[in-house]
Amino acid sequence: MSAKLKSNKKRNTRVVKDARTMKPPFVLFLGNVQDPLAAKSTTGLLYWRRKDCIGQVRMSDCQVPIDLPSIDLAEAVRLGAKTFVIGVTNHGGKLGPSWKPYILKAINYGLDIASGLHDRLSDVPELVAAANKTGARLLDLRHTDIPIPKATGLKRQGRRLLTLGTDCACGKKFTALAITRDMKSRGINCTFRATGQTGIMISGEGFALDTIIGDYIAGAAELLSPSNEPNHWDVIEGQGSILHPSHAGVPLSLLHGSQPDAFVLCHEPTRLHMLGITYPIPSIAAVREATEYMGRLTNPNIRCVGISVNTSAFQGDISQLKQQLSKEHNVPVIDPVIDGTNEIIDYMHSIGLLTE
Amino acid sequence: MSAKLKSNKKRNTRVVKDARTMKPPFVLFLGNVQDPLAAKSTTGLLYWRRKDCIGQVRMSDCQVPIDLPSIDLAEAVRLGAKTFVIGVTNHGGKLGPSWKPYILKAINYGLDIASGLHDRLSDVPELVAAANKTGARLLDLRHTDIPIPKATGLKRQGRRLLTLGTDCACGKKFTALAITRDMKSRGINCTFRATGQTGIMISGEGFALDTIIGDYIAGAAELLSPSNEPNHWDVIEGQGSILHPSHAGVPLSLLHGSQPDAFVLCHEPTRLHMLGITYPIPSIAAVREATEYMGRLTNPNIRCVGISVNTSAFQGDISQLKQQLSKEHNVPVIDPVIDGTNEIIDYMHSIGLLTE
Repeated sequence: MSAKLKSNKKRNTRVVKDARTMKPPFVLFLGNVQDPLAAKSTTGLLYWRRKDCIGQVRMSDCQVPIDLPSIDLAEAVRLGAKTFVIGVTNHGGKLGPSWKPYILKAINYGLDIASGLHDRLSDVPELVAAANKTGARLLDLRHTDIPIPKATGLKRQGRRLLTLGTDCACGKKFTALAITRDMKSRGINCTFRATGQTGIMISGEGFALDTIIGDYIAGAAELLSPSNEPNHWDVIEGQGSILHPSHAGVPLSLLHGSQPDAFVLCHEPTRLHMLGITYPIPSIAAVREATEYMGRLTNPNIRCVGISVNTSAFQGDISQLKQQLSKEHNVPVIDPVIDGTNEIIDYMHSIGLLTE
Repeated sequence: MSAKLKSNKKRNTRVVKDARTMKPPFVLFLGNVQDPLAAKSTTGLLYWRRKDCIGQVRMSDCQVPIDLPSIDLAEAVRLGAKTFVIGVTNHGGKLGPSWKPYILKAINYGLDIASGLHDRLSDVPELVAAANKTGARLLDLRHTDIPIPKATGLKRQGRRLLTLGTDCACGKKFTALAITRDMKSRGINCTFRATGQTGIMISGEGFALDTIIGDYIAGAAELLSPSNEPNHWDVIEGQGSILHPSHAGVPLSLLHGSQPDAFVLCHEPTRLHMLGITYPIPSIAAVREATEYMGRLTNPNIRCVGISVNTSAFQGDISQLKQQLSKEHNVPVIDPVIDGTNEIIDYMHSIGLLTE
């Protein structure tokens, strides 16, 4: 049975679960966000869909600077805005009570509301009532109505690349999007596959794995990267870390369901502890070994094809860091923001994984 | 935030989530079950709480023989029955539509209804309406209202033993219950910790991990086996197999959250393929190695203390099988139904894990 299907039944019919219907252009709502990490849906949309973002709305105590004009909703509507996007991903995915007047105002302007929070817009009667009046749609993108089967582990046609990390929030989504962009620009047949709310906002499809019951995560990964043409690549956004004691089961299920031919390891070199806990960041070698060891179950040929470092906070010599890691791990090392990912694609070519 | 708390809110207030309130004696309802595996809640209750089971109710096409008198509900109530237990665990955890008249009849006799299904009794308006009339309580034991935090990975006081397996349904619950019984009879301070619906019915507490969102499973395991006296043992019921491609993330999270000092590997020697898929059963050595490798993250001293074989379908020489496995893996090998688990407890003693 589908665990997800069940959890959404009997909800308001105006609620839309299909992220592909998030219509541009967007107004990005920052709320009162204090931490840049919590604004990652906004910064993600801004980087990958800049031309669809016409302005931002923020509360007076919002602390995160965003390079987008502040906009008045009346003006946004005049400029053709279609969707008011809640661009905040706070701890716990809570809908801030102080945001409600802003959301209501947007609904009253007839804008759709898109949210990647755990809390559902459709659980707030006031928002549902207002949306029913103006015809605005409430898009709870983190939740889906698509039935998810249990994983079979059967080999599927087509190729798959998965990004993994030494921690959460270290560049897995960005790296997967950059690889997809760079593969496409070289004419490689490929698709980005989102597994979190920001990736879904950017690509318009996918499953937020952190809302799925444990037994069905590998099944969601199988559904996400279905059988395809032999030379097609799914570039799958990883989640968490396989050596993170809070949630390693989620990346393990994603690894099994994705059955990747290739993986790229993402790492933030300045971080000392894994997010949210007191454990030190595991070594790249340890995560690579655990990934290969556990990944062989559904793809005996799994191999690491690169390391992606997020050097945004790194104070040392970036070239030296990359050279050292590359020598140590014998794969290309890139910062996707600075370098793009062509070195990884070249490497995949050189080892026969890609035949462009 | 609590994923579980959220999913249950706004439900009928008569619904009871606390399994500890399942009042004996029980009438066991078999429905039209065709497969002995699907009757495991019934057989589990019958084995471990026989004196609380006063009779069975079954439909005419039920194919599974159960050693318990068939009983009429009026008679059951005269004998003091308090709870009508749906003793079926079918694929998908569906509430059979043909069972409804039986459940309604039991409600009308004033009996509580207990269910370990995914489908909730409290989602069936007809049952809720009837229960509201007679004062019967609807116990959806597979679901909980207890808030589950994310796991921290922090070391907790007390000792823990986890059962794991080469597959699903190969004796993990039975083995954990048998170890708890045998430890208690030797005066060892210990508690059985249930992680599935049948275990919850038997012990009166626990979490059904297969209804929990992936990110919170390790947190549920931490909550399940909290800090305790230094010499107290939690004996934790395992789930699935860490080498099963459909759901390995669940046992991995359970392993991390349980941080076991000791584990017992459960195995069904006649099975060729893992349940539900075409993959062959992994070797005991492979599961043991993967468990130690991944388990070291939260307990560097994790070690295997025994192998539990389910020989109920085995046609060969059981003594020879056990000797061979024991020689191969260098730990005691028992069939807990035939031998009990004292050999494992003795072994834990001999290696200094137990100091009775």
